[in-house]
Amino acid sequence: MGYYIKDITVLTWEQGIKIITNANVKVVGSKITYIGTEDQDDSGTDIIDGKGKVLMPGLVNAHTHIPMTLLRSYADDMAPHTWLYEHIFPVEAKLTPEDVYWGSQLALLEMIAGGTTCFADMYCFIDKIAEATAQSGLRGLLSRGLINGAVLEDYSDDDRLNEAVSVFHEWDGAMDGRIRIALAPHAVYTCSPQYIKAIRNMAEKLNAYIHVHVDETVKEHNDCLQQYGKTPVKHLYDIGLFDLPTIAAHCVHVTDKDMDLMKEKNVAFVHNPGSNLKLASGVAPVPDALNKGLNVALGTDGASSNNNLNMWEEMNLASLIHKGSRLDPTAVNAAEAFKMATVNGASALGFSDTGQIKEGFKADMIIIDAQKPYYYPKHKLISNIAYAAQASDVETVFVDGKMLYHRGEYKTLDKEKILFNVEKTCERLFSK
Amino acid sequence: MGYYIKDITVLTWEQGIKIITNANVKVVGSKITYIGTEDQDDSGTDIIDGKGKVLMPGLVNAHTHIPMTLLRSYADDMAPHTWLYEHIFPVEAKLTPEDVYWGSQLALLEMIAGGTTCFADMYCFIDKIAEATAQSGLRGLLSRGLINGAVLEDYSDDDRLNEAVSVFHEWDGAMDGRIRIALAPHAVYTCSPQYIKAIRNMAEKLNAYIHVHVDETVKEHNDCLQQYGKTPVKHLYDIGLFDLPTIAAHCVHVTDKDMDLMKEKNVAFVHNPGSNLKLASGVAPVPDALNKGLNVALGTDGASSNNNLNMWEEMNLASLIHKGSRLDPTAVNAAEAFKMATVNGASALGFSDTGQIKEGFKADMIIIDAQKPYYYPKHKLISNIAYAAQASDVETVFVDGKMLYHRGEYKTLDKEKILFNVEKTCERLFSK
Repeated sequence: MGYYIKDITVLTWEQGIKIITNANVKVVGSKITYIGTEDQDDSGTDIIDGKGKVLMPGLVNAHTHIPMTLLRSYADDMAPHTWLYEHIFPVEAKLTPEDVYWGSQLALLEMIAGGTTCFADMYCFIDKIAEATAQSGLRGLLSRGLINGAVLEDYSDDDRLNEAVSVFHEWDGAMDGRIRIALAPHAVYTCSPQYIKAIRNMAEKLNAYIHVHVDETVKEHNDCLQQYGKTPVKHLYDIGLFDLPTIAAHCVHVTDKDMDLMKEKNVAFVHNPGSNLKLASGVAPVPDALNKGLNVALGTDGASSNNNLNMWEEMNLASLIHKGSRLDPTAVNAAEAFKMATVNGASALGFSDTGQIKEGFKADMIIIDAQKPYYYPKHKLISNIAYAAQASDVETVFVDGKMLYHRGEYKTLDKEKILFNVEKTCERLFSK
Repeated sequence: MGYYIKDITVLTWEQGIKIITNANVKVVGSKITYIGTEDQDDSGTDIIDGKGKVLMPGLVNAHTHIPMTLLRSYADDMAPHTWLYEHIFPVEAKLTPEDVYWGSQLALLEMIAGGTTCFADMYCFIDKIAEATAQSGLRGLLSRGLINGAVLEDYSDDDRLNEAVSVFHEWDGAMDGRIRIALAPHAVYTCSPQYIKAIRNMAEKLNAYIHVHVDETVKEHNDCLQQYGKTPVKHLYDIGLFDLPTIAAHCVHVTDKDMDLMKEKNVAFVHNPGSNLKLASGVAPVPDALNKGLNVALGTDGASSNNNLNMWEEMNLASLIHKGSRLDPTAVNAAEAFKMATVNGASALGFSDTGQIKEGFKADMIIIDAQKPYYYPKHKLISNIAYAAQASDVETVFVDGKMLYHRGEYKTLDKEKILFNVEKTCERLFSK
């Protein structure tokens, strides 16, 4: 059982952009077993004609909150405090596990159709997110957002942390390793140092990754300086959080020294340009992070602050906004944006045998219809991908060697049923 | 002969966002003759089922250079001078009228499929652009970019200006007014004051619009201050250019006083966020322009600095980047971005009976498939349009009451033939 994709253009990253034209690619089981220009035995495979198309790694959304699709376009164009306290939190307080399940399914529909094959999530009721992700076929590093809730010094009785640990035991490594569970201290302003330490120690015990919001706003930065006398990064560094593999989302206001600490501990810097612009958080120092050799990945954040889960827009924004804000047209080039959205994301999330089209790697990959007008003329494919391509160019999506989507048809999810249930959920959730 | 669109959601601007659900819309000849919820006589019309879809005004690309699609992704991520002098100009010097024709056709394919129904262009061989535009069915205000080429004081013998005037006489008002010709002094740094004056006087005589690049870069701004002792806007104002209806493209570095002058003369401020970011020109003071009541429209600029002609991306960028760069989440809201891309553009280009879905107006309009996952849940349509929608959601395009595109099928252009000729053109053009 497998796939044999013939005569396609392969676009991937391997110490630089690598393009193979007229390539044949063979997938057996969950893995890519051949990439090259020679003919292969196609027996037992489904054959796909790749002429005029591009095969590239699936996109990795390295920071999101997928159930927040339920809040898409519910509250926009307003001050952060009004947005969060008067609109988002009151609705989130009413969420049931079932709501989170349908919100997740809606997000999974959108992500699959747009070529996202892997994501890092932080939210509540994550057993429901795990269930939806398992059904969808996508790859995910899921985490329960933890905020201070307990009184005991060692937090051994903290409900949320216990919930996270219980989900870890139930889901970590499930679906042949397609689903993993991280621990997620929400942020320095929602968790006490003791609580972060407790989470860190639990993660160490479980051998779990860490997912945390870091220095998203000026307010977070300044409050941390005032409360702890140091930046959020230094604060987390001193607690020892970064001793564990960590995904740091946003990093908008990190300093030069902060980035050195992140580099020292190999903390992944997740850039969320769409959300940072929309919520007016600012523009993250991505060119500096790249110069320092940090692993910079890309994320959409939740749909309530974006308002979609479209990684093509994030690639485009990442490659544009730093040029404009620094008046430097060489800042974050097309290849760098592509790398952030693929191999860097895969590495940040610890799915290290994904993110590239490479023999022996998992077949997490997408086929792009490169015959739309904006793919012409054929000067430079990587520029077309970063600056001109659209999520809707995605024609076929594979994760773990399994086809999840082909020409508008979902292979694992029931679109009609999901949209129906999302509308029903929202009728209840948003009734006065 | 006409169309009867049933049970659709109409989204338009009329002193604010106006939404009519379950609307029926009738088009007879080139015009919208009915919008409302009552049943109409459908005899002699083609009936379109609008359930789950949105009808909105076609998008207006208020500043572009459509033949530059030939240079898409040819030169990126480099300094402006290198880009322009070592890559763009040498190729442009080799362009033939036939090349411009095929480059225009490629752009028209892309614009139509993305729901752009009207555009303002500035380039050379514009009789070929006019010919392509006439065939496509799109609405265009076309202009020959004029740079100093003559020696006579009154420029009556200037080749380029004579060419522009001749095209004006041949094409202005053609195709039932669908094509109009403007005069276009390229910029303050490529035209002497005398030349701009001569163009201005000719435009006055012809009753033509003006299309001009204004204050795109810091260099243009500073050089103008040094050479003329005033800003580009003040310089053009003093020459009297703004006595005529003017489309001013870019306006990245205009001052507060400049904007007052633009307001006084009702000069349209065309924002090109994608190009301004990509070429590292900077971020235009759009929130200030809006506060002053200027007519702010949107444009893509040429595909060589964008790298597509996607007005949905420009709407999205316009609504995002000012929030981020000013740390103000209320800057340029979704409705303002929509208005810029529709009614403001139509007004800037002087096609005043387009840009809105309104009885008696020309039927320049598009149907959007609002059943993609990112249109759910249905909280606020205008936010979904500005922050989540994609060009590929465009299902049907009408200009002047004529259907140009429906579900991937072009009604006026031959996609295969165009792509074939573009590739052939580029083989010659880019051969060493």
